[in-house]
Amino acid sequence: MAQRVTLSPGDTIGILGGGQLGRMLALAAAGLGLRTHIFCPDPASPAFEVATSYTMAAYDDLVALDRFVRHCGAVTYEFENVPSETAAHLAAAAPLRPGVRALEVSQDRLLEKNFLTETGVSVAPYADIPGEQDLAGVLARFGGQGVLKTRRFGYDGKGQVMIQQAGDAAGALDRLGNAPAVLERLIPFEREVSVIVARDINGACDAYDIAENHHENHILATSTVPADVPDEIAAKARAMAVRIADALDYVGVMGVEMFLLPDGQDDRLLVNEIAPRVHNSGHWTQDACLCSQFEQHIRAVAGWPLGSCRRHLDVVMTNLIGADVDGWAGILSDPSARLHLYGKAETRPGRKMGHVNRVRPIR
Amino acid sequence: MAQRVTLSPGDTIGILGGGQLGRMLALAAAGLGLRTHIFCPDPASPAFEVATSYTMAAYDDLVALDRFVRHCGAVTYEFENVPSETAAHLAAAAPLRPGVRALEVSQDRLLEKNFLTETGVSVAPYADIPGEQDLAGVLARFGGQGVLKTRRFGYDGKGQVMIQQAGDAAGALDRLGNAPAVLERLIPFEREVSVIVARDINGACDAYDIAENHHENHILATSTVPADVPDEIAAKARAMAVRIADALDYVGVMGVEMFLLPDGQDDRLLVNEIAPRVHNSGHWTQDACLCSQFEQHIRAVAGWPLGSCRRHLDVVMTNLIGADVDGWAGILSDPSARLHLYGKAETRPGRKMGHVNRVRPIR
Repeated sequence: MAQRVTLSPGDTIGILGGGQLGRMLALAAAGLGLRTHIFCPDPASPAFEVATSYTMAAYDDLVALDRFVRHCGAVTYEFENVPSETAAHLAAAAPLRPGVRALEVSQDRLLEKNFLTETGVSVAPYADIPGEQDLAGVLARFGGQGVLKTRRFGYDGKGQVMIQQAGDAAGALDRLGNAPAVLERLIPFEREVSVIVARDINGACDAYDIAENHHENHILATSTVPADVPDEIAAKARAMAVRIADALDYVGVMGVEMFLLPDGQDDRLLVNEIAPRVHNSGHWTQDACLCSQFEQHIRAVAGWPLGSCRRHLDVVMTNLIGADVDGWAGILSDPSARLHLYGKAETRPGRKMGHVNRVRPIR
Repeated sequence: MAQRVTLSPGDTIGILGGGQLGRMLALAAAGLGLRTHIFCPDPASPAFEVATSYTMAAYDDLVALDRFVRHCGAVTYEFENVPSETAAHLAAAAPLRPGVRALEVSQDRLLEKNFLTETGVSVAPYADIPGEQDLAGVLARFGGQGVLKTRRFGYDGKGQVMIQQAGDAAGALDRLGNAPAVLERLIPFEREVSVIVARDINGACDAYDIAENHHENHILATSTVPADVPDEIAAKARAMAVRIADALDYVGVMGVEMFLLPDGQDDRLLVNEIAPRVHNSGHWTQDACLCSQFEQHIRAVAGWPLGSCRRHLDVVMTNLIGADVDGWAGILSDPSARLHLYGKAETRPGRKMGHVNRVRPIR
């Protein structure tokens, strides 16, 4: 059965996408004696510099994809918006891990919420908004408030409009380019948390400790582990992530973002979204665990057993966004800090340039 | 002053030598957003695959060296037998870290022992053996026993002859190709230990916890940390390594191998040899410390402050020599083990193919 293929040291993993996630995956693979081949259209891809080889081509260039996949024992990706034709084309030639189902579900907010609901995990109340005429009725049901989000291609707050008062609804869909959308009820959550879950080709599944996340301008600013939540909440969050991975027959690492509601609610954990890839809120694993999320993903994609998700340090991960990276020298002087830079030539506002993990012994 | 040059993220460090040490240095540099350029004559260099760029040329190819150094903000090396002309040529064009003095001293056992003695650290009794006629007299002084070693180019037991009884001396120098040699008195040591010491461009110096080393067939088999030695011995070993680094005005990471004599001796620690580079007996730092010896060396070479040498786990490093590497799958299944493979295509007896760090909480 093709899905049971396992790689050997010296084999090559193909990675779609050449950003920092692809770069850190390539570095982890190199530590295990595996080769990587990055496929990305961007000539300035930070992952090109550390991979064994790379192809610079468009994701719909089937000739380039064929040439690429011929050298790969397995293929993975660093972003969920892999075109479905690309995914299907590659999956026909080599094990694609995670598989096409994980991509389909995570690419479309409506399918994602339907899937999560069917899987038995809770999400915020939501409704399909195919067009302007559908918005008013749903808004009325949701108390006049909600977040309108495009079904596809949203990230870091892009493709969203907040509706908080009567006037906000008019023109909201226009501002999203009249793309198919969903309305989510506004959730008065207490905290944002996330789980990094990993699953291997035989269905063995494990999750790292949950992280408490803070966003600024819709971009992740910090992840703190341990999260300041009761143990039973943490255990439930991890169990939910495992349930989702099992339902997708998932192979690899997945990020699951959740909202924690205030005490007193029946369902205190609502899943916000899933990302079928290594996740920014899992970067802390690089320095607080023996096996990072990057090595974990590479192991699963290679068909190898998972490493341990056990954590041996407390940690706060802070993203270095835009000019934050200019503080690199100060970070290097902090003995409890580990600096990670992505090798991006150009600093731009809002651009993720690196991150720092600040550790301390487990309290 | 040229020796105070500091690099910025995005700059390039040149590395002479493309083996596993160069490879792990390149991976550490990439994590810090630095580029690397490997210089090595061997087309099968494992470091080529992970470096930003490489030059395949002989170490005495001055044209290639000039082209190489032009792109480098600083230059370092993974082996101590860099030809002195090569070192001098590069040092004239870019900061060479560690410097030429460290190379001169570590390339010649006689100079090394003279230097160590002058620095005030103890070594085993030794004598210069320029030729056959000098051997008998010294042997008589050393109780008829000793290890005859070539002054230059010895490693992993190569270039050595053991003299234990009367007949062994005859032809001993012949077997070393009549190269200039030193005789070392046989030391009835209790343990072999080593210290990985790091020093930055401003003279700040720190050492990792000492490792206890076991060799098989003259090749390092395991390093165990903590070493089973009294605290005051460990402290003295680290202080000796710092003293040596200071005396060399050293920049970078250095390995210092020592013999521990049985209790009751005045000087229980004798320095065996120094290696002006990252060292096999420091590979444990990759998983038991926040800042590995590889990152530490890269920081120093870049003119950056040192990271912390603090250890947060107990660890045993085991080298995977030759066919040992065939056990990779079993190692992956051990949750306390971290596998490191070097990407070498060909397994040969005695060849270092990888290593594994097995960790546990500090007792």
